[in-house]
Amino acid sequence: MKKEITFLPIGEVRTPFKEGDCPFQPPENGEGEAEIIIYPEFQDGLFELNSFKYIYVLFYCHRCRPYKLRVKPPWLAGKEVGVFASRSPNRPNSIGLSIVRLKRIENGKIITSLIDAYDKSPVLDIKPYFKSLDCKQDANIGWLEGNERGWKHLQKHLQGIPVDESSDT
Amino acid sequence: MKKEITFLPIGEVRTPFKEGDCPFQPPENGEGEAEIIIYPEFQDGLFELNSFKYIYVLFYCHRCRPYKLRVKPPWLAGKEVGVFASRSPNRPNSIGLSIVRLKRIENGKIITSLIDAYDKSPVLDIKPYFKSLDCKQDANIGWLEGNERGWKHLQKHLQGIPVDESSDT
Repeated sequence: MKKEITFLPIGEVRTPFKEGDCPFQPPENGEGEAEIIIYPEFQDGLFELNSFKYIYVLFYCHRCRPYKLRVKPPWLAGKEVGVFASRSPNRPNSIGLSIVRLKRIENGKIITSLIDAYDKSPVLDIKPYFKSLDCKQDANIGWLEGNERGWKHLQKHLQGIPVDESSDT
Repeated sequence: MKKEITFLPIGEVRTPFKEGDCPFQPPENGEGEAEIIIYPEFQDGLFELNSFKYIYVLFYCHRCRPYKLRVKPPWLAGKEVGVFASRSPNRPNSIGLSIVRLKRIENGKIITSLIDAYDKSPVLDIKPYFKSLDCKQDANIGWLEGNERGWKHLQKHLQGIPVDESSDT
């Protein structure tokens, strides 16, 4: 059933990333804030969301480029992986998925830790992150395993340190 | 910018849930399997995905009902929360997000642990789950915290035990 599926945004992301580079992962060093503006007609759906420390933000990567089925994550020194084994924004359906820390909710605006999204990215959905469901203690890091360069690269991302991203994610 | 955003499925989910009830969470007891059939033109994008233990499956909840901005999760004995503080499939943009265990990939078919999706749900995206990025050790369980009934309910879900789901999630 290859029918088109159509969504309407429920809001917009506000980040400092207006032009040029946008980080590939939400930095975890706690610096910086993003805002998720939820349109008035959906704001009542935020009730009790503030009981969660983390939330999922699903957004449309509106500045994505045409995708390729194989990409070269900068973490991997030229090695190729399939686009579905990557977190590249350039994919068949460019849905961004970020887990961010919820700081507070004010007048239909969700204030979060920094999101790896361009300013004005349309927001498709917000979901609560439940530790017991979503934190998989026995998960792994896939193709990063045993890849020292990639692992160091990831650590820099998590610390919010700028990294040379000359390849695709 | 309230423009429509249109996606085309990259594949379809195959689960035993054809009619009637569908679980609200992927059961974690390891029983049962699901298949994600990726359409031929996208199959090359699966390269190296098999290095991951867990993956995200983003799908369209094609059998969703009209949404309400407030829902009553069965976990909460009649208490209301906003739809964005819930995992109900009935939401403004009915995108399902499941984290499932990847078992193997065969001829463009991803075999996974059971997915909480109806059979033939259109698949929008597959992403790798990186433990270091996605497993938030300091996350919480939001409105489930201190709610003994809800907590027991969640535990039954995780063990794959059928639970009376008379309310909405």
